[in-house]
Amino acid sequence: MRPRASEVFFLTRNVNKFEEASAILGGFGINVLMMPEERLEIQSDDLCEISKFSSLRASRAHGVPLIAEDAGLFVDSLGGFPGPYSSYAFRTIGVRGLLKLLDGVSERGAEFRSAVSFCAPGADPLCFLGSVRGEISKEARGSNGFGFDPIFVPEGGGGRTFAEMTTEEKNKYSHRAKALEKFARWFKEEWAPPSKCR
Amino acid sequence: MRPRASEVFFLTRNVNKFEEASAILGGFGINVLMMPEERLEIQSDDLCEISKFSSLRASRAHGVPLIAEDAGLFVDSLGGFPGPYSSYAFRTIGVRGLLKLLDGVSERGAEFRSAVSFCAPGADPLCFLGSVRGEISKEARGSNGFGFDPIFVPEGGGGRTFAEMTTEEKNKYSHRAKALEKFARWFKEEWAPPSKCR
Repeated sequence: MRPRASEVFFLTRNVNKFEEASAILGGFGINVLMMPEERLEIQSDDLCEISKFSSLRASRAHGVPLIAEDAGLFVDSLGGFPGPYSSYAFRTIGVRGLLKLLDGVSERGAEFRSAVSFCAPGADPLCFLGSVRGEISKEARGSNGFGFDPIFVPEGGGGRTFAEMTTEEKNKYSHRAKALEKFARWFKEEWAPPSKCR
Repeated sequence: MRPRASEVFFLTRNVNKFEEASAILGGFGINVLMMPEERLEIQSDDLCEISKFSSLRASRAHGVPLIAEDAGLFVDSLGGFPGPYSSYAFRTIGVRGLLKLLDGVSERGAEFRSAVSFCAPGADPLCFLGSVRGEISKEARGSNGFGFDPIFVPEGGGGRTFAEMTTEEKNKYSHRAKALEKFARWFKEEWAPPSKCR
């Protein structure tokens, strides 16, 4: 199942993430194929380390070039928490818990980060980072998106949370869109299988 | 560097944990050798999965039988948070953050859990779980131990936190001691290298 030069697998079980990637990479003429497998994630403070490990392992297992993505919300005044473990924090303490941790805290700066890693058979993984600065709102607003979207107000977004934007609007600011675009540019301009594979 | 039948490596960079294990396993006639390497940890809600992966990987890399341990504090009213990511939560939001999440919450039940996994070359890893029930105190007390010890009051400990106990006292209640004892009993009674190795 070797993809053509303009095709890449995306290791994800999240259909929303897959559709977001399809839309963005499609704009660069790259066709994305979904590989809906469990992604093995290591524990690390560095999103790139996590997504590189996932992409390396899956690429070796399946013998195809693919991308894996890892994302997190890093709150300045909480030492970066919940960071790489945002998904676990969301499932346990949730939006309410994060708001409680920031109760009475005036410094509300935060950053959403996304790390997209690409790995091809025989090559080392490469990581592309995207981020968006913003603030944690005082209360949850909006119902679009997922995770901590209802309390993240991106800079330049007119004070709205990610959950108050349509997917199209969110893609203008989103950390994931930025990381995917960086990857897409590199993939179109630099990557040429199989001559660059070792 | 193949250890004798009554010897086992312990994959840890934490000298306190190593000494705790030496004391407990020594009581069973088992000699512990320190393997002070970075432990590769996966992300999982299951401590056994995490420590099994660590022990398997290190045992395969070094060709020796060894144990790896993973531990966490699971708070009932927070859906188990911080659980497998207790170390990260401690480094970021800290004791103060955990107390803030429980501010005004009357249900303060919690559990410390430890998963000790043993793996020998050619065999599958085996996991031994230990746990201790208790409560999260209203404020931090004591200066012994580490991590969330100053806010964990184990059942049967006379209302003192782990950080108000000596290491010897703590070992009477500790999740890690219980898991290490389970492992030690199995290791002495069941494990006989190399006949049981596949």
